[in-house]
Amino acid sequence: MATLPSTLDELRQQIDQLDSQLVEILAKRAALTAKVGQYKSQVGLPIYVPEREAELIKKRRQQAKQSGVPPILVEDLLRRIMRESYHTQHVNYLCTNPSIKKIVVVGGAGALGRIFVDMFRRSAYTVVVLEQHDWPQADEMFADAGLVLVAVPIKLTEAVIAKLTTLPRNCILADVTSTKQKPLLAMLKAHQGPVLGLHPMFGPDVASLVKQVVVVCHGRGADDYAWLLQQITMWGAILQVCEADEHDAAMAFIQVMRHFCSYVMGAHLATENPNLKQLISLSSPIYRLELAMVGRLFAQDPTLYADIIFDNEASVDLLGKFAQQFNQGLDLVATKNKGEFIKRFLKIGSWFGDYAKQSLVDSKKLLLKADDDRTWSE
Amino acid sequence: MATLPSTLDELRQQIDQLDSQLVEILAKRAALTAKVGQYKSQVGLPIYVPEREAELIKKRRQQAKQSGVPPILVEDLLRRIMRESYHTQHVNYLCTNPSIKKIVVVGGAGALGRIFVDMFRRSAYTVVVLEQHDWPQADEMFADAGLVLVAVPIKLTEAVIAKLTTLPRNCILADVTSTKQKPLLAMLKAHQGPVLGLHPMFGPDVASLVKQVVVVCHGRGADDYAWLLQQITMWGAILQVCEADEHDAAMAFIQVMRHFCSYVMGAHLATENPNLKQLISLSSPIYRLELAMVGRLFAQDPTLYADIIFDNEASVDLLGKFAQQFNQGLDLVATKNKGEFIKRFLKIGSWFGDYAKQSLVDSKKLLLKADDDRTWSE
Repeated sequence: MATLPSTLDELRQQIDQLDSQLVEILAKRAALTAKVGQYKSQVGLPIYVPEREAELIKKRRQQAKQSGVPPILVEDLLRRIMRESYHTQHVNYLCTNPSIKKIVVVGGAGALGRIFVDMFRRSAYTVVVLEQHDWPQADEMFADAGLVLVAVPIKLTEAVIAKLTTLPRNCILADVTSTKQKPLLAMLKAHQGPVLGLHPMFGPDVASLVKQVVVVCHGRGADDYAWLLQQITMWGAILQVCEADEHDAAMAFIQVMRHFCSYVMGAHLATENPNLKQLISLSSPIYRLELAMVGRLFAQDPTLYADIIFDNEASVDLLGKFAQQFNQGLDLVATKNKGEFIKRFLKIGSWFGDYAKQSLVDSKKLLLKADDDRTWSE
Repeated sequence: MATLPSTLDELRQQIDQLDSQLVEILAKRAALTAKVGQYKSQVGLPIYVPEREAELIKKRRQQAKQSGVPPILVEDLLRRIMRESYHTQHVNYLCTNPSIKKIVVVGGAGALGRIFVDMFRRSAYTVVVLEQHDWPQADEMFADAGLVLVAVPIKLTEAVIAKLTTLPRNCILADVTSTKQKPLLAMLKAHQGPVLGLHPMFGPDVASLVKQVVVVCHGRGADDYAWLLQQITMWGAILQVCEADEHDAAMAFIQVMRHFCSYVMGAHLATENPNLKQLISLSSPIYRLELAMVGRLFAQDPTLYADIIFDNEASVDLLGKFAQQFNQGLDLVATKNKGEFIKRFLKIGSWFGDYAKQSLVDSKKLLLKADDDRTWSE
């Protein structure tokens, strides 16, 4: 009887048993990584250790190969499991500067400010939040502050910084605005002590700072704020140092162009009014993803995006140049000049170099993931 | 001694043991799903059964909740594991029409044609490939064909179809071109028998047809080609029926707009020549993804994209309207009219409706996945 072919039901029951064991392993693993987290926060080791992650994956890939399991499957699963442990298991962090008496976060009740307040508190700092109605008491609040972090909307940043002329001489003044030249100049002008410009490259909905980028623009007194950068690293973030002007030029390309183009795409769709449901049902993974990248913009705060686009001085010039490129391309289509289009396409491809191929590989992984998530209940 | 806190090394060894068990479970599971695949191909059951997938996930989510494991973690892992089993375990498929003597795939050596040749062969059909140099023998090849599938580049499709005037009366004529109105009309004109327009919404690098969309535009004699649609469903694909003109209008929005905009973005970057490496290092997950979506275009065949953009008659009109929207938006930025921008933003948001929020949720999942994959070896 044992050699008879199993029925589908029997096979499915056996699969269910294995899946159940999988959940048990995850529960045990979470208990272990919680202990690792506790140990690390006591000893002061960073959460995210790229070498350990790479080694762990390498070992399991080798085992997978020997067992006839695709190594990429094991790698994908382990990365997903590790993400969860990064995001959920680390409740407290080592404090890199216990001598700091107080941190004041100006705008600490805002979306981004809240994250920093939370992270500082979980690292055993005393944190005070200064909101609009607290300005009458500001001097009192600043009195023994070791760090004042400005986390207010872009358009208010310079005005708020201009008020910070009475901080203690040794207090660090830092900001987390998404432009860097003007806030940094304003901080250097308002305050004679250590000054640091930061741009956290993540949204307020981030689950943890592990692997997130924080751009660092040095202002004055780098030795005095070294502990702060070390603290951010302890949270798992990756620091990228650059000059404030380089940063702003890059952001015009990265943020302004993309948000503006998504806005125009949305405006175009809303005006032409195609059947959105049909568009989605007819779309392949890549188009669904591109459409989602446009759609997601409009689920967010318009003021934030207006500020990003309108408050960058490079915007009008850069968007004008983009419009020129668009019209040149449109001319090629209107005059049916496919040959020239292909010629330019290849030239652009050589500008991108190896990055083009790498993007194809990277985005393919994501598109497969997008397919995994399709339930076809629609 | 047993109650002393474990060292980091000990904890890591225990984690490694669990990860090793995970790989063992995957190997056992793959053996079981291979058996399921064999069974299904014998009995003629489709690979992808949405209800089974949903039920399997539901059960493990419940178990996860009880075990203190995040249900979304278990769901993500199971979806990834199932993807692998969809893609690797199904070697053969039930043939839905064993009475068909022969299938001819015109352009069957091309990227997309090859996929259909492979799928038909794995479903026990006799498949013959007709390439350019085979035209002298074409009539012979078509003599006892039950299906002729045209899978040639867009620009050749109509000319190739025009030659297909001598197919057997009962032979099905179908195509897989990414436009549908013209090829369908050409097929109905050339052939008096059953005619079917298909548009597979996936690229030639697809690992399997599971969950992939195939657009169906009915031509003539739907009863005669019902087996073919059933066969495609057997491969795991999802059929979306629509009219040829609706399809082409939707593709102008979906394909032409996105590819053209990515092209312009690439042209803009190559012209302005910023430091690409720095742009990437300073980018948050969403910008890296958007940049990758542009970069990936230029790793691909320019002719294909030129054909898609230039051969759609709606292109010039639609791109012109997009340019108008762009200039209107640019005017708002140039005149610092933030209020009007925000007003329009909200109006577009209400056009997108629930889709905007859904995209935010969906794309966030993908961005987290993009973070998982970052190794920071750069």
